[in-house]
Amino acid sequence: MAIPRVTIWNEFRHERSNPAVASIYPDGIHAVLADALREHGLDARTATLDDAEQGLPLAVLASTDVLIWWGHIAHAEVEDALVERVCDRVRDGMGLVVLHSGHHSKVFRTLMGTTCDLQWRVAEDRERLWVVAPGHPIAHGLGPSIDLEIEEMYGEHFDVPAPEELVFVSWFSGGEVIRSGCCYTRGRGRIFYFRPGHEIHPTYYNAQIRRVIANATTWAATTAGS
Amino acid sequence: MAIPRVTIWNEFRHERSNPAVASIYPDGIHAVLADALREHGLDARTATLDDAEQGLPLAVLASTDVLIWWGHIAHAEVEDALVERVCDRVRDGMGLVVLHSGHHSKVFRTLMGTTCDLQWRVAEDRERLWVVAPGHPIAHGLGPSIDLEIEEMYGEHFDVPAPEELVFVSWFSGGEVIRSGCCYTRGRGRIFYFRPGHEIHPTYYNAQIRRVIANATTWAATTAGS
Amino acid sequence: MAIPRVTIWNEFRHERSNPAVASIYPDGIHAVLADALREHGLDARTATLDDAEQGLPLAVLASTDVLIWWGHIAHAEVEDALVERVCDRVRDGMGLVVLHSGHHSKVFRTLMGTTCDLQWRVAEDRERLWVVAPGHPIAHGLGPSIDLEIEEMYGEHFDVPAPEELVFVSWFSGGEVIRSGCCYTRGRGRIFYFRPGHEIHPTYYNAQIRRVIANATTWAATTAGS
Amino acid sequence: MAIPRVTIWNEFRHERSNPAVASIYPDGIHAVLADALREHGLDARTATLDDAEQGLPLAVLASTDVLIWWGHIAHAEVEDALVERVCDRVRDGMGLVVLHSGHHSKVFRTLMGTTCDLQWRVAEDRERLWVVAPGHPIAHGLGPSIDLEIEEMYGEHFDVPAPEELVFVSWFSGGEVIRSGCCYTRGRGRIFYFRPGHEIHPTYYNAQIRRVIANATTWAATTAGS
Repeated sequence: MAIPRVTIWNEFRHERSNPAVASIYPDGIHAVLADALREHGLDARTATLDDAEQGLPLAVLASTDVLIWWGHIAHAEVEDALVERVCDRVRDGMGLVVLHSGHHSKVFRTLMGTTCDLQWRVAEDRERLWVVAPGHPIAHGLGPSIDLEIEEMYGEHFDVPAPEELVFVSWFSGGEVIRSGCCYTRGRGRIFYFRPGHEIHPTYYNAQIRRVIANATTWAATTAGS
Repeated sequence: MAIPRVTIWNEFRHERSNPAVASIYPDGIHAVLADALREHGLDARTATLDDAEQGLPLAVLASTDVLIWWGHIAHAEVEDALVERVCDRVRDGMGLVVLHSGHHSKVFRTLMGTTCDLQWRVAEDRERLWVVAPGHPIAHGLGPSIDLEIEEMYGEHFDVPAPEELVFVSWFSGGEVIRSGCCYTRGRGRIFYFRPGHEIHPTYYNAQIRRVIANATTWAATTAGS
Repeated sequence: MAIPRVTIWNEFRHERSNPAVASIYPDGIHAVLADALREHGLDARTATLDDAEQGLPLAVLASTDVLIWWGHIAHAEVEDALVERVCDRVRDGMGLVVLHSGHHSKVFRTLMGTTCDLQWRVAEDRERLWVVAPGHPIAHGLGPSIDLEIEEMYGEHFDVPAPEELVFVSWFSGGEVIRSGCCYTRGRGRIFYFRPGHEIHPTYYNAQIRRVIANATTWAATTAGS
Repeated sequence: MAIPRVTIWNEFRHERSNPAVASIYPDGIHAVLADALREHGLDARTATLDDAEQGLPLAVLASTDVLIWWGHIAHAEVEDALVERVCDRVRDGMGLVVLHSGHHSKVFRTLMGTTCDLQWRVAEDRERLWVVAPGHPIAHGLGPSIDLEIEEMYGEHFDVPAPEELVFVSWFSGGEVIRSGCCYTRGRGRIFYFRPGHEIHPTYYNAQIRRVIANATTWAATTAGS
C-alpha cells in the first residue's frame, strides 16, 4: 500500500490563548502530531479551525486517506455542513483518528449515535494504558502497558457503542478506568478513538503514544484505497 | 419484570392511499402489530404520523418502554426535534424495534451513524429467514428458518454498523442475502432491526413473524426499568 | 419463564484445609453462593468435587439450567470426560457462570479456546468494578461501580477471546485493570465470567457481588428452555 | 512488513484416491493454493498429512507466519499433540486460514470451543458470496459478490462463536445461507474461516476466490511479527 495521505486537524485555540499550553505546544498540537507521524514514516499535512473553510475544503477532504482530529472548546463552531462532509468521507472509506477531547466533537458523536459522555477530572492523576488486544496492529511494538506521569482523568461510564475491537483500557491513580483505545467501522471507514492528550500535559511527546497514533493511522488507512 | 408498556408507531399513509395495502391492513399496519403483541401477552397502544404531535408527545414517549417503528414514504416529514427526542429516550433506556423500510427512518439512521442504504427490488421473491443465533431470546420458540411466500427483496450491502448480535440472515429466491435481524445498544437502550414487512404483502399476519416481533419487544424492554 | 434450576459446583478444598478460608466460609463457598441466589429468589442446589461422580452425574447436569463454577487448586483433578459433558451441556443451552480462579478451569479454557492466562498478585489491593454496560441485565440494580476493600489482583493481559459483551472492568489500587465481567455464547449456551471471589476474602457476602451473580444466573438461564 | 512465510497444509487424500478430484487437482489442492498465493506476491511452501511428522515438524511451525488448512476425511488422523502445537502457535501469533471442510478439523474446533457443525448437501447448487464488510482488507479488490457456478452447499445453523468480523455471507440456489467468511482472534493469532472449496469442483482456480485467500493470508499475517 502506498503511504497514506494524512491530514491532522486541530482546533488550535488553547495554544494561542493559554501560555501554559503554548509553552508545551508553541506551534500547536498539530505540529507535534505531524512530527510524530513523520518519525514513523508517514506523510502529514495540517489544518486548523481558523483556516479557510475551517481547514477542510472539499479538495483537502477528497485527498485525505486518514483524518486525525483534536478539538475541545470550539466543537460547536464546526459547521454542520462540514461535519456532514467529514462523516460522509468516513463512510466512503476515509480513516478517522479521534484524540482525547474529540470524544465530544460533532463528527465523533454523529458517527457513534450516542452522547459520548464520560466522567472527567483535571487533577494530578497518573494514567496507565493497558494493552488488552496484544495482537492488534495498533498495539504493534508496545509492551504490556504505557505509563503517563500526569494526565487528565477520563472515566467510565463512557457512553459509546461497544467498540468493535478494544485495544486499550486505562487505569487512573484516582480510582477510575476507561476504555481508552476503541475501534469502529462506519460504512467503509475505520475509526479509532484514543484517549490521551490533555493540552496542558506533554503527552504527544511520549514515544509510545506517538507510536500508537502512527499505528492507528496506518490501520485506519487500510480501507481508504479499496 | 412488569409487562412493558409498548407504543407502536406507524406512518399510516400507504393504508389510506393504496387500496391494495388497505385490503391487507384495513385498520393500518399498527393495528395488526398490536394484535400480534396482545396475542403474546404484551400490552400495546398505537400512534401514527398524522396524530397530534406526530403521535409521540413527551408524555407518551416518557411512558413507553419499547417503541416499534414502521415508516416508509414520509420519513422526511418526521420532525427533527421529535427524532432527537426519540433517540434521547433510546439512549436513556427505551427499547426500539425498527421494522422493514424503517431502516431509512431518521431515527434509525441517527442511532446507527451510517447511511443504512441497501439493495432492493419489488418482485415475486420468496424470503427465507435463517436463525443464526438459535439460543438468542429473539429466536425463542422458532425452528431453523421462517418462510415467506412473497416479499420485497432487501439485499447486501446493508450499510449499518456490524450488529452486536446477528439473529437472522435472509435468503431471497432472486439471489440475494441480507442480515435481517440485527441487535444494537445505544446508551442504555436496546435496538432491534427486523427486515420483513412490505406493505403489499400480509407478512404481519404470519405467526412466526409475530412471534419474533413479540420476542424482540420483550428483549428490548429489558433495560427500560433498570 | 420458570425459575431456573441452578447447580453451584465448588471445588471445596481450601475451606477444609485452610483455617483462614474456613473461618470465612465454614460450610464452603457453595453454601454462601446458594444463600446469595436464594436471597434473590433463585433455586439452587450444590455439588462439590469430592461428591460421587465429582458432583455432576448425568442426571444432575441434565436437570441443570445454569451451572455456577468455583475451582482453583484442583482443576487438574476434574476428569476430562466430565469436562466434555459439561461443555456439551453448555453448547446445548445450559448457562454457565464461571467465578474467579475458574478462569483456569478445564471447562472454561475448553469453551474459550485460549490459555485464559492473566497476571495476578495476592496482596492488599482494593478492587473497584466499573460498570461499562449500564443497560445490560447483569448490571441491573447496580450503581456506577462496586468497591471491594481487599481482593486478590487479576490483571491484563487476560488471554480470552474478546467478550461478546463486556459488562465490568476492574481497577486495582496497585495499578492494574482487567475485563472482569465477560459474556460469551457457545452453541446455544450463555457464559459469564466474573472475576471477584478470592477464598481468603469475604467477597461473596458483599450485597452487590451477590446481586451480580444472581443477575448473571438469570441472564444465563435465558436460553436453557428455548 | 516483510512477506509472510506461509505454509499450506493439505490432507491430500481425495486427490490420490478419487480420479474426479485428481483430474481437477492433479498435484493436490495445496499446489493450486500455492500458485494462487504466488500470483499475489506471497511466498508459500506446502505440507501434507502423509509427510514426515504429518507435515508440520516443530521447525516448520516455528518458521510459519500463516498456516492454511485444508482437510476433510482424515481429521481424526491428525495427532492430538500436533493439534495442540498448532493451536499454541496460533495463540502465540501465527495466522490461520481454514478452508471449507476444515470447519470440522480438530484445530478449528479446539480454537472455537464449539462443535462447528453445519448443514450440508452435495448437489448442483450455485453459490453466491456477498460481501457484507466492503471496507475489510479481506474484501479488498472485490465487487459486491462472487459467483460460483457449482459448489457443495453448507448452511446455517453453523455452530461457531459469533464472528468478530463477518466478511462474507453465502447464498445457495437450494435455499440456504451461511456465514462464509468469519474472522476470529485467539491469543495474538488471527483466524479466518472461508467456506468455498469442495474437492470435486474447480473452486480454487476462480480468480476472486484466489484473491480472497491471498487477502486473508496477508490479513492473518499482521500479528505474526508483532
